[in-house]
Amino acid sequence: MKPAVINFADKLSLFHEHWAPRTIASLNDYRFKLAKVQGEFVWHSHPDTDEAFIVLHGSLRILLCDGEVVLEPGELYVVPRGVEHKPVAKAECHILLLEPAGTLNTGDAADRRPAAPEVWI
Amino acid sequence: MKPAVINFADKLSLFHEHWAPRTIASLNDYRFKLAKVQGEFVWHSHPDTDEAFIVLHGSLRILLCDGEVVLEPGELYVVPRGVEHKPVAKAECHILLLEPAGTLNTGDAADRRPAAPEVWI
Repeated sequence: MKPAVINFADKLSLFHEHWAPRTIASLNDYRFKLAKVQGEFVWHSHPDTDEAFIVLHGSLRILLCDGEVVLEPGELYVVPRGVEHKPVAKAECHILLLEPAGTLNTGDAADRRPAAPEVWI
Repeated sequence: MKPAVINFADKLSLFHEHWAPRTIASLNDYRFKLAKVQGEFVWHSHPDTDEAFIVLHGSLRILLCDGEVVLEPGELYVVPRGVEHKPVAKAECHILLLEPAGTLNTGDAADRRPAAPEVWI
């Protein structure tokens, strides 16, 4: 059976929680995830992997130790492995994430904020 | 130095050739690429990797041995490793690709159609 075409808007209509990524597709041992975010996340890093953020709707700030970046729809940012970052969104923002399977959304901060479980939609 | 935010529209304004992907970012040993496509590409497969297509503008048909899929903007399709496919676009279409570094756009058909060299923008 061939894989289905994945429509981001359709998948985003299926959940409403913030900071709880939903997995939508595999690419080898990587996972595409959609998330709705609003407010401030925890400072964390991923010691073993880069992490890609693509904004689909709204505006995402990513605080970094040496400044910040702001992503608007149609923009991509790759946080390098090991780099501390804190995603922040004043209003609800919808993002597409790409990272290796098993990557925790809270990275090395899972002791301070429980990681979201992997949920496929 | 922290990585730059990558704006897809800005990057797409920098080239005009069809079927000649431009690399815009690394995620570990994977590469994000943008491409402008129009017309018919060659039938090919990638024996060692899945390949992700996200449509940003226009409409992309991917012919498969057992049918076809059509992607509109905001849609993702992952062609599984080893699956023969032939991308086709009646009008110009802009796509975001994700695949491992070193993946040839013509896959196993490089003897019939020369692969595009990797070009960063």
